[in-house]
Amino acid sequence: MVRIGILGATGYTGLELLKLLLRHPEAEITVLTTRQDERPHLADVHPQLAGRLDLRLENLSPRDVAKKADCVFCCLPHGAAARATPELLDGGARVIDFSADYRLNDAATFKHWYHEEHPDPARLGRVVYGLPEWFRDDIRKAQLVANPGCYPTSAILPLAPFLAQGLIDTDDIIVDSKSGVSGAGRTPKLAFHYPECNESIMAYGVGTHRHTPEICQVLGRIAGRDPQVIFTPHLVPMDRGILSVIYTRPIKKLDQEAALDVLRQRYYHEPFVRVVEHLPATKHTAHTNFCDITARIVQGRLLLISVEDNLVKGASGAAVQNFNVMHGFAETTALL
Amino acid sequence: MVRIGILGATGYTGLELLKLLLRHPEAEITVLTTRQDERPHLADVHPQLAGRLDLRLENLSPRDVAKKADCVFCCLPHGAAARATPELLDGGARVIDFSADYRLNDAATFKHWYHEEHPDPARLGRVVYGLPEWFRDDIRKAQLVANPGCYPTSAILPLAPFLAQGLIDTDDIIVDSKSGVSGAGRTPKLAFHYPECNESIMAYGVGTHRHTPEICQVLGRIAGRDPQVIFTPHLVPMDRGILSVIYTRPIKKLDQEAALDVLRQRYYHEPFVRVVEHLPATKHTAHTNFCDITARIVQGRLLLISVEDNLVKGASGAAVQNFNVMHGFAETTALL
Amino acid sequence: MVRIGILGATGYTGLELLKLLLRHPEAEITVLTTRQDERPHLADVHPQLAGRLDLRLENLSPRDVAKKADCVFCCLPHGAAARATPELLDGGARVIDFSADYRLNDAATFKHWYHEEHPDPARLGRVVYGLPEWFRDDIRKAQLVANPGCYPTSAILPLAPFLAQGLIDTDDIIVDSKSGVSGAGRTPKLAFHYPECNESIMAYGVGTHRHTPEICQVLGRIAGRDPQVIFTPHLVPMDRGILSVIYTRPIKKLDQEAALDVLRQRYYHEPFVRVVEHLPATKHTAHTNFCDITARIVQGRLLLISVEDNLVKGASGAAVQNFNVMHGFAETTALL
Amino acid sequence: MVRIGILGATGYTGLELLKLLLRHPEAEITVLTTRQDERPHLADVHPQLAGRLDLRLENLSPRDVAKKADCVFCCLPHGAAARATPELLDGGARVIDFSADYRLNDAATFKHWYHEEHPDPARLGRVVYGLPEWFRDDIRKAQLVANPGCYPTSAILPLAPFLAQGLIDTDDIIVDSKSGVSGAGRTPKLAFHYPECNESIMAYGVGTHRHTPEICQVLGRIAGRDPQVIFTPHLVPMDRGILSVIYTRPIKKLDQEAALDVLRQRYYHEPFVRVVEHLPATKHTAHTNFCDITARIVQGRLLLISVEDNLVKGASGAAVQNFNVMHGFAETTALL
Repeated sequence: MVRIGILGATGYTGLELLKLLLRHPEAEITVLTTRQDERPHLADVHPQLAGRLDLRLENLSPRDVAKKADCVFCCLPHGAAARATPELLDGGARVIDFSADYRLNDAATFKHWYHEEHPDPARLGRVVYGLPEWFRDDIRKAQLVANPGCYPTSAILPLAPFLAQGLIDTDDIIVDSKSGVSGAGRTPKLAFHYPECNESIMAYGVGTHRHTPEICQVLGRIAGRDPQVIFTPHLVPMDRGILSVIYTRPIKKLDQEAALDVLRQRYYHEPFVRVVEHLPATKHTAHTNFCDITARIVQGRLLLISVEDNLVKGASGAAVQNFNVMHGFAETTALL
Repeated sequence: MVRIGILGATGYTGLELLKLLLRHPEAEITVLTTRQDERPHLADVHPQLAGRLDLRLENLSPRDVAKKADCVFCCLPHGAAARATPELLDGGARVIDFSADYRLNDAATFKHWYHEEHPDPARLGRVVYGLPEWFRDDIRKAQLVANPGCYPTSAILPLAPFLAQGLIDTDDIIVDSKSGVSGAGRTPKLAFHYPECNESIMAYGVGTHRHTPEICQVLGRIAGRDPQVIFTPHLVPMDRGILSVIYTRPIKKLDQEAALDVLRQRYYHEPFVRVVEHLPATKHTAHTNFCDITARIVQGRLLLISVEDNLVKGASGAAVQNFNVMHGFAETTALL
Repeated sequence: MVRIGILGATGYTGLELLKLLLRHPEAEITVLTTRQDERPHLADVHPQLAGRLDLRLENLSPRDVAKKADCVFCCLPHGAAARATPELLDGGARVIDFSADYRLNDAATFKHWYHEEHPDPARLGRVVYGLPEWFRDDIRKAQLVANPGCYPTSAILPLAPFLAQGLIDTDDIIVDSKSGVSGAGRTPKLAFHYPECNESIMAYGVGTHRHTPEICQVLGRIAGRDPQVIFTPHLVPMDRGILSVIYTRPIKKLDQEAALDVLRQRYYHEPFVRVVEHLPATKHTAHTNFCDITARIVQGRLLLISVEDNLVKGASGAAVQNFNVMHGFAETTALL
Repeated sequence: MVRIGILGATGYTGLELLKLLLRHPEAEITVLTTRQDERPHLADVHPQLAGRLDLRLENLSPRDVAKKADCVFCCLPHGAAARATPELLDGGARVIDFSADYRLNDAATFKHWYHEEHPDPARLGRVVYGLPEWFRDDIRKAQLVANPGCYPTSAILPLAPFLAQGLIDTDDIIVDSKSGVSGAGRTPKLAFHYPECNESIMAYGVGTHRHTPEICQVLGRIAGRDPQVIFTPHLVPMDRGILSVIYTRPIKKLDQEAALDVLRQRYYHEPFVRVVEHLPATKHTAHTNFCDITARIVQGRLLLISVEDNLVKGASGAAVQNFNVMHGFAETTALL
């Protein structure tokens, strides 16, 4: 039995993580934190979990959390995560971090996109990126895993096989992604106020979204050269789900069946990537850890289309998958 | 041409009001206020209105507003409205107030439900309740009109004809109302954060909602005796619309056709009340000033069902209707 | 391992049932039927289940299904269910029926509400009603279980403890229920076409909904006398969830804490009924088998408020709960 | 006063058109058709219009319609429209056709995309394309106007100014569009059944959508050479609205301000195109005839972003705009 702590359990990724871990036969949730001082009962924060787990959220130091937990899921915002993580690791806990803090390889890139100094720069470049489909061996033995961003997962999984084989132009990649509103977190803001975003769709962060460097870095590592990626996220009036339509240019002629085969061969043994022939809808993966991918050839271009649940495969499900890999449990435990 | 001011134009009722008044041939919008100091351009606050009206919102005193406007629509929260209104009236403006401040007849009832002292108690009891279908003559000559609450309109219009004729028991009235989220206003709060209220319905304010005394007071005036009303509002995952299902007990046997006739006879000449035979959906009245009403007899009880758009007939449309009545314009101007 | 068949697996209850049973360690799904002849692969009917179960849907006779399955979940429409069930039982299978066919005790009531002759009238009156919280012992040994309707569960669970103790007037019960659209099934109709029911709420089947006699019959059995129930269902723009607000009249004075205690004492040991103090939202129970209930006293009346997921506790989750009871498995298996 | 007929008034474009025309001081609606024989009252088909217009829908021949109307809005499906139009024109009516039948210039292209013979091929190539912002002079005197498709309007308005000036590569244009469900019409189908498309987004018609040749043809005419356009539509869980994000490659360096200026200069005098600096949401144009457009430069590419209401600027509002132009009325009549 692995003792589990969750830092910042009040948000949507925390809730989703709790729902998954409550089904995990090898996980015992022992400590939950919040930065408020009221010590609320879990059921007051997440009425969904009434009667499921008799715990209060506490305002504990990372050091104290590390005493009560063998593995800590860190659901803090960027910046805060990298301030807490060193103490967690020093305290002996293994850490799965949901923030962007340990995803980028260098502090300068971090500062460029996040407009602040990285609190723990020395560790950058040595942290494992928690995408089991590509970095499973590294995850197995990692003390600290950077859980991927929701958009990057939806972009990297379809693109990586083609980039790994040098099949597409690295300089002409457009990722047009659409996300449900839970991706924006649980803090009330006007943009996410129901009557503002209901019955409406908009693009946001055009050319400036912070997941762009993450996508580029991971794809660059797989491709062996830095790609140029235009990334456009959208806010869609639904709770959960990400759809990415990715426009690429094959280096030599490619037909649809061959493109699907590239995906099928790469992901044949993967439990959570489904290569499908139909055009997938986000609902096909809602509340699951699957990422469904298909390919189309249109006027000589290769279009890749992926769907996932941003809170599961895009966050908490991926984290549990990493947890399973790290601890040698069957990778699908609590996820099917 | 009537010069129009709007106090508190940043919310949803302000936006709806602006859309209606921009179509009104006798209204000239001259002044808009906000309690912020930035003097934002209207189009920055409401991008819907880009290119429609070249005005900035200003932090003006009611006295200054009264200099620039003949008629002021006051969209301030309760309390603030009754602090601004005396100055508006002293400055010579006619006022249509959207808040609850002037709807109740006495300061004690106000304090009981709103937990604060009324800022302008002397005026209470003499303010006209702006429901033209019942108080049109008073509205015509009023300096100050209390625009009805969204729920009260949906409850009073169906019930009043039966109470006026003494056809139903005043002590056994249940109003079960369901509202879209715009009714909660535009200030971000967790309860109205998209992923909280999307895909969910809940009752709220059970037994404690502040529209209860307003419903009782107006119905009591019409019935000639105080009714007992149980009022249960709900939050529904949609932008706009109120559906009220009202359970009453006929004093003597009543069949469905007779019940519909009571409604038809009372509202035959009303331009914005439609008595219908089908079960109405809120969408039938969305973006209109109509209130659709039907009646059913179930096991001897009389059920009244009404739908309206909470932002139009439940707020800004009713206000424009009052404006038309007050100024002798055709009552449907800008509303059809 | 129990071999499972599902008759009519193409709808939403079939999908939900499959998702639950795929997690059940003692269930092996061996046969799925459809009334179409194309033998579609399960993943073509439910893309959500791609890669989960390699089965085709087949147009098989009940007799053939009974050869392949020990327990059959029958998700056919009313009428069709009672035509298939006798053969399933004769073939030796145990049956959990989702339709209304075996919920009512006599053929005359069935004909009155369903406007057709019952195909299997001799069995009526002897079939177990599958609400484990009230009829667990009967379910254990039943060959045929009538799975409750979604609305009835949301009405019976809160009302039954008060009726069992004679605490409320049986002649003054109003059940005002609101349901997500999945409750209407998967057959496309104009009323459930997205742009018709999105952004809209309406009451339907007022005074005529077929769940009324089911609610009355079960409550009557518990109360020891026939109650009079006014039942008003609504269609709410969301996928899933039922909220019922129930208006009752206590026979003698009852305060809120006492009312909550009646519920707490009755359901203390029940794994899927949560008595809560807050006003519950349907989202609290979405994708779970919980029914959350609270009580309020308003002007001397007792209001009971319940929420559940219409596809889980209101259908497929309840069926799996019955399956567990029937086979002696832990009652929460596959449901937490 | 212009006498108006509407062929096929039962759908969403018919409803929207009626709402607009009821506000038009120069339009008198005299005849509405349906292909059903029941002669339903308008309010039975569209309860929104109860009390607004006392007309029945009739199954009339185009010839009979032409006797009762000076101008006919044809809201029939493709194929049916081109079978009715010749008779309408022969009967002396002017026609605004909502279908695709008269948008394409040659019968071969029509057959390629619509898989049937064109019923009225001789007229193709001579019909005016009803986009007033580009073809106003032709519309003025036209007997027959082909009202643009909803997606094409959202793509052409932003792209045309750049293509007219030769500023972007005609061979590298990607149009990624997202539409509300009303765009799919009012006929119930599984794909548009509420629980299928709610809480989900998907791409559809990838590489095969019939608006592709329309976009190419109109842009080709403006550019002076045939462009290559990849067009990807999506279905978004909302009633109305289209957002298009368009990826293009400038021929020489272009900065954001210069790009916005290209749009501003072209559309400065246009009443229904708003060039905005912020990222527009579809809600900004909901229930209006506006198309809001902005531009961004990302990594040297020019991104154009447009929003419109698919039922207004994308259909019925554009039709009324064309009607105004054809009849010499102020172009904004009934549209502001």
